[in-house]
Amino acid sequence: MNSAIDFYFDFSSPYGYLASTRIDELAARHGRSVAWRPFLLGAAFKLTGQRALVEQPIRGPYHERDFARSARLLGVPFLLPAKFPFFALAASRAFYWLGDSGQAKALAKAVYHAAFAEGRDVTPVSTVVEIAGSLGIEELERGLDQPEAKARLREATDAAIARGVFGSPFFIVDGEPFWGHDRLAQVERWLETGGW
Amino acid sequence: MNSAIDFYFDFSSPYGYLASTRIDELAARHGRSVAWRPFLLGAAFKLTGQRALVEQPIRGPYHERDFARSARLLGVPFLLPAKFPFFALAASRAFYWLGDSGQAKALAKAVYHAAFAEGRDVTPVSTVVEIAGSLGIEELERGLDQPEAKARLREATDAAIARGVFGSPFFIVDGEPFWGHDRLAQVERWLETGGW
Repeated sequence: MNSAIDFYFDFSSPYGYLASTRIDELAARHGRSVAWRPFLLGAAFKLTGQRALVEQPIRGPYHERDFARSARLLGVPFLLPAKFPFFALAASRAFYWLGDSGQAKALAKAVYHAAFAEGRDVTPVSTVVEIAGSLGIEELERGLDQPEAKARLREATDAAIARGVFGSPFFIVDGEPFWGHDRLAQVERWLETGGW
Repeated sequence: MNSAIDFYFDFSSPYGYLASTRIDELAARHGRSVAWRPFLLGAAFKLTGQRALVEQPIRGPYHERDFARSARLLGVPFLLPAKFPFFALAASRAFYWLGDSGQAKALAKAVYHAAFAEGRDVTPVSTVVEIAGSLGIEELERGLDQPEAKARLREATDAAIARGVFGSPFFIVDGEPFWGHDRLAQVERWLETGGW
């Protein structure tokens, strides 16, 4: 049986959002599943010395243009939230609180859609709870403050960094790392050919 | 008449080398020429706060792998020089000293090939002069120390940054900016469609 593709992303990453709209379908074409693995990109940035793209002189305006241009090319709706970059703690904790379930992935897709298709501020716990509620996921709020919820996200972030993940999105296919939504064509080719 | 594609690059950029092996042919398919425009990426990094990829923790090993993997996919020879990153001052000055001529582009291709196909150290003036000599370009050495040669490179670098160029390779097609050799498919599509 073929192993899952690991899909690492931060909920505040526009390129992660773009990849999230394609990765499941891409993997399915090659008989693969996808393990969605949100993490806190800021923890990796502390080690690599990076900071959010849009906060960087000269690079920021380019990337704002590129987010929208790349989305148009994919035919995906895109609207950058007024508050950007943001810290997606609530959504990330919620994901792991729900465990490795279809509910967690459904919530992830809905959060990404709210943030980058609708431009909503998804940082408040209440917003994440509301989005979850619209999917029939109840009693989320009580979980998010549990030490267990915090610990799971911390462990997931540490595990991502330990595997060399430093950006969002980041894919690992049979041990081979690929960074960036613009590497999806290479990911697909790797799946087709087993490497080159 | 269609305007030229501006191709900005630093001679020490492996992704610039990869793009250099494809850009002329890609442009020709769409009836375009390419204006090769080397610049000193370090000057842009001072403004954006970036530094060389391989000097960055975690990101460095990934990119060394990605350079070679991307080259294999293109079917292009690749060997990272032992001294890397390097400061390509001599080659950059030589390019502009030769002016906007076929000689300058021929030298650029030969320097890139020496650096990243053969893994040679192209930082010494003597090496650039030797590479130029193998192309029948003589009397280069005397020019490189001229204030005029230094000034042309400085002006080219300032002009690149003034247009928002912050990385290598970087393309501008009819005013539209694209960063990265992994944007070449988008560059080609832009040429085909006039934008999206």
